[in-house]
Amino acid sequence: MHVNVKPGRVIVGRLKKGDDLLFALQQICSSQEIRLGEIRALGAVKSARIGYYDQDRREYFFVDLSKHLELLALIGNVSIRDGKPFAHAHVTFADSRGEAFGGHLAEGTEVFACEFSISEYLSDTGFERAMDDETGLFLWR
Amino acid sequence: MHVNVKPGRVIVGRLKKGDDLLFALQQICSSQEIRLGEIRALGAVKSARIGYYDQDRREYFFVDLSKHLELLALIGNVSIRDGKPFAHAHVTFADSRGEAFGGHLAEGTEVFACEFSISEYLSDTGFERAMDDETGLFLWR
Amino acid sequence: MHVNVKPGRVIVGRLKKGDDLLFALQQICSSQEIRLGEIRALGAVKSARIGYYDQDRREYFFVDLSKHLELLALIGNVSIRDGKPFAHAHVTFADSRGEAFGGHLAEGTEVFACEFSISEYLSDTGFERAMDDETGLFLWR
Repeated sequence: MHVNVKPGRVIVGRLKKGDDLLFALQQICSSQEIRLGEIRALGAVKSARIGYYDQDRREYFFVDLSKHLELLALIGNVSIRDGKPFAHAHVTFADSRGEAFGGHLAEGTEVFACEFSISEYLSDTGFERAMDDETGLFLWR
Repeated sequence: MHVNVKPGRVIVGRLKKGDDLLFALQQICSSQEIRLGEIRALGAVKSARIGYYDQDRREYFFVDLSKHLELLALIGNVSIRDGKPFAHAHVTFADSRGEAFGGHLAEGTEVFACEFSISEYLSDTGFERAMDDETGLFLWR
Repeated sequence: MHVNVKPGRVIVGRLKKGDDLLFALQQICSSQEIRLGEIRALGAVKSARIGYYDQDRREYFFVDLSKHLELLALIGNVSIRDGKPFAHAHVTFADSRGEAFGGHLAEGTEVFACEFSISEYLSDTGFERAMDDETGLFLWR
């Protein structure tokens, strides 16, 4: 499925040291009532918690990266889950040697510094997440 | 070279489980007749085929990653090659331990889930790919 | 802090083989007088120089990757530092085996091929970088 959408607001900002990366972005999407959009960010974190979806067991497993990391890229989107704005993001990190790691961004990732943009989209078609039987994930209908 | 372009349509959507990631994005760009644009995506794949361009031999080599991977970031663009819309994308993946891999997206990458956006741009200057003698790549003239 | 901004110009282009990746992007932002914006790019480099910010010592350390690499993703922004447009970007690379590396983009990264987009934003609130005591970084006030 794919839909033509209209550009809405664009929000640019930064998060505070100590913020939870996912929670802070989620809060902005909620308070600004963004129902559809894209998120991009870069920065650094004090530690990270990333998810990997086991496609066979249909379950997320989480990895804690307990070290300071550069946030190379956060690519995410905003849509509706359970009637509310819901942020979904994947993150790529690098350690002091430049080696890269990443996964599905989970709560528990602590911001050191983070600069982000959110592009809102307006759509007549709602982008609502619902359980998808084929994958076990909450995907757009 | 760089050109001021105008925003056109924005398309947001998701691919189906089992889709070929590059082919599916290419199909949307073709059917929507997108002549210039950007693509961003995240998701998960059942397996991946990525290219590495050998700058000395001027030849792509391909690596098959025969495992389930998170798609951390797909960054791509759309322009014209041989008179038709052509999608070019680079992908970053992570495995179950969070280790990251990536390359030039090749056909043979099977989608598990994928959420994407395509931003169309309108330009008086055509963005047509032609063989570039300096690199051996098909680049914008 | 986060601010609603307005879309401005969009610039799409490519860099030349041999360009310094950061310097070339910086030059375009300077010559186009882009005071706020986002940068995205993909391509390949002949060698890379990436920074890692040591959050304890409050100092950047640099790693030279003296090999040909695919540029999987460049995610960056433009804002004002010392009164002038300043480009800040993080980069993810992959080597011939598909292994990913990355960090804060430093001068000394030589382009093989690079396709980029810059989205300008217009804002009444200036995005000026100033020393942030909490992190030792030049962040938006």
